[in-house]
Amino acid sequence: MSGGDFSALVADLESGKTSASALTDIALNRIAAENDRSRIFISFDADGARAAARASDARRLAGQMLGPLDGVPVAIKDNIDVAGLPTTDGTGFYRDRSRSADAFVVARLRAAGAVILGKLNMHEGALGATTDNPFWGRCENPLAEGYTPGGSSGGSGAAVGAGIVPLTLGTDTMGSVRIPAAYCGAWGLKPTRGLFSSHGLSHLSWTLDTIGPIATGPDGLRAAMMAMAGADPADLLTSEIPADWQRGASSADSVTLGVPDYGTLATCEPSVLEGYAAFLDKLRQSGMTVTPVEIAGWDPGKARRAGLLLSEAEGGALIGADLDRGGDGFSDGFRKLIDYGRAARGERVASAYREIETLRYATQAALRTVDAILLPTAPQRAFAHGTPAPANQADFTAIANIAGCPAVAFPLPAADGGLPISAQVVGPRWSEHRLLAIAERLFALGRG
Amino acid sequence: MSGGDFSALVADLESGKTSASALTDIALNRIAAENDRSRIFISFDADGARAAARASDARRLAGQMLGPLDGVPVAIKDNIDVAGLPTTDGTGFYRDRSRSADAFVVARLRAAGAVILGKLNMHEGALGATTDNPFWGRCENPLAEGYTPGGSSGGSGAAVGAGIVPLTLGTDTMGSVRIPAAYCGAWGLKPTRGLFSSHGLSHLSWTLDTIGPIATGPDGLRAAMMAMAGADPADLLTSEIPADWQRGASSADSVTLGVPDYGTLATCEPSVLEGYAAFLDKLRQSGMTVTPVEIAGWDPGKARRAGLLLSEAEGGALIGADLDRGGDGFSDGFRKLIDYGRAARGERVASAYREIETLRYATQAALRTVDAILLPTAPQRAFAHGTPAPANQADFTAIANIAGCPAVAFPLPAADGGLPISAQVVGPRWSEHRLLAIAERLFALGRG
Repeated sequence: MSGGDFSALVADLESGKTSASALTDIALNRIAAENDRSRIFISFDADGARAAARASDARRLAGQMLGPLDGVPVAIKDNIDVAGLPTTDGTGFYRDRSRSADAFVVARLRAAGAVILGKLNMHEGALGATTDNPFWGRCENPLAEGYTPGGSSGGSGAAVGAGIVPLTLGTDTMGSVRIPAAYCGAWGLKPTRGLFSSHGLSHLSWTLDTIGPIATGPDGLRAAMMAMAGADPADLLTSEIPADWQRGASSADSVTLGVPDYGTLATCEPSVLEGYAAFLDKLRQSGMTVTPVEIAGWDPGKARRAGLLLSEAEGGALIGADLDRGGDGFSDGFRKLIDYGRAARGERVASAYREIETLRYATQAALRTVDAILLPTAPQRAFAHGTPAPANQADFTAIANIAGCPAVAFPLPAADGGLPISAQVVGPRWSEHRLLAIAERLFALGRG
Repeated sequence: MSGGDFSALVADLESGKTSASALTDIALNRIAAENDRSRIFISFDADGARAAARASDARRLAGQMLGPLDGVPVAIKDNIDVAGLPTTDGTGFYRDRSRSADAFVVARLRAAGAVILGKLNMHEGALGATTDNPFWGRCENPLAEGYTPGGSSGGSGAAVGAGIVPLTLGTDTMGSVRIPAAYCGAWGLKPTRGLFSSHGLSHLSWTLDTIGPIATGPDGLRAAMMAMAGADPADLLTSEIPADWQRGASSADSVTLGVPDYGTLATCEPSVLEGYAAFLDKLRQSGMTVTPVEIAGWDPGKARRAGLLLSEAEGGALIGADLDRGGDGFSDGFRKLIDYGRAARGERVASAYREIETLRYATQAALRTVDAILLPTAPQRAFAHGTPAPANQADFTAIANIAGCPAVAFPLPAADGGLPISAQVVGPRWSEHRLLAIAERLFALGRG
């Protein structure tokens, strides 16, 4: 195993069973051997990674480890800047857009000792959830040949699911971290809007986007979060991080979970309904308080359409000029979506903003009545590349983006023993510490 | 004097020098005698007001006064619902739109004993700042014949300035409470977004609008604020009111005032520049800390255009269908503005939202470095009806709407002894108590 499990890998580094250089070589060798087929990576920096790994190993020898991320190979979605590599946003047009500086969060990971391997495949322009990319290839789901890893952070989910690295960064606009985490059997964190600086991120929707880690388990998410969270003068949203956030309560005792009427809210695959019902039974049997909760006015289909229109209009405001001169550097499908938002009537776009804001307050109000809201991550499991993507993939995930609230997705076993399903907890703003603790407890109960 | 000064009137009611019924009759008589000329009121409810006044007088006799508002005549801008009267929004189209229930804030004022006299003239559709209304007449500035009272809450400023009532409600989207307060020599409060429920308000821009009181002084604003503030399940924005807001600190000691470079930010009338410079000198001489402050990226003209586009698009989303069938119930000028926002390209509207949100964070960041930001309320004094309205009327006020922050406008003497000028303090969200105390102290220094 190269990077199969974050905690095991950290333990192996600490005990000297392995080294950062060894892990990096194994990962690079796997990329070299597999990437033509798996299409998980878009680019990588072998020399930079090996140098960073050697530096980490030297720190370890000197007893000057920087923390749990020191020496851990990490890979980054290709809409987040890594110095020395291009940031393609999964398009052809930005193929040679070389970046000289790291995004804030990448710099933070480096400062914590992480070894940045390279950039990960993604759905074109972060607008879609299959990662069947016309420029960078059809990204493979490591759990099922020919299947989608989800998206838009498909490479980020696949790299963790494949065990190439134990930790990646993705971005989540309506579910783009949590859906690939779900489809690839990994964990994903979508933080409170403003916890991680967006400086160095190519935004799709500045209203809905957050950067988020995908990892093999909660320890990886927590380590990445602690490294990346913090005020950045270049992103004023981070000025709202509460002063006591770092000391956030992480108790998962006497938790009240609110469960929306998910079966009615979106049409779920039978395997998801079965697995999730079994999961809820286990929670109840273990004495957890599981109670119905309603997010007033939440119609997931309507919310998805509003979020999509917002993403298309905001994305269009950012890259419209490039789209006009981009030729075949963008696919026709992507161009059509963005052009739709660019040209949409102002009154419709304004109504979409209102729909989003109304739901934000309604979700935050519902979160005052429970400790967390529990939902399936997606209404379906991974599906075969080439089959039509279900329209409702993001119906359960987008609500956290709309609310600006954190969410943690974690895998659950499927009743049929096939591809995993996934559940997510959504918590009040800035509740990441508690939410991770809750997810960890629920995960253990789900396996039990 | 009927309702000339709020505190004096409350004292006279308490001492028995006058009664609610007497005050109500005087006000109604003035409306009957003057309104054909002054066009301050659109409608009034003489019977209802007299009955409410009698009930207040009975409470007083029984020693069961409800508080400082009990028996005080109050009038309401005609885009806020009052049971039994139409809500015209200052248009012809909604002339007969009778309302059976009070807006939340009106019900709160009634519950505090206020005598609701009637509905006040306003700029058509709240979109403009002269209150030269094509359907309800050219509202007169009580301080200068033939002059505008400002707007859009022109009737709300004029009714207080004229001494017809000591307290009115207006609404403030980019300055629509504070500009008429300034032009009419009154005080105006634009609260934190979410402090007063908007239930029963005809929104122009749900993003920027707040209801706000205009009064003869800070006591009137405070009494109205304490009566109106509070959670309303029908407006989830009010669910964010901090639990300890009612006990907010009201000390105005050791205040640091941040003064933006107002002379460069907008072209001000000489009388405003002179009066304001003299005011700042007085503050410095009194030992106050007055320091430059910058709101990063604030270009008032650009912010105004973004706020206007947002208002037109959001207003269009709300009343577009009525506009299409409204015939001459709307003026051509109003129709043109709203239709512009309705049809604006989605990418432009999205960019306007981003401009607003970026400035929101920048303003809140600046407010972390000082206790309050001090600015002229408007770059000019009231001007003659019929002369072109300056484009920059709202350049100093809109920033508080953009930031969602509270602001208090108060009058300052003009150097030439003519029409008053006005200053405003803008504070952090939920700082109304302290902001009113600061404004009161600055007002006293400004007169000294």
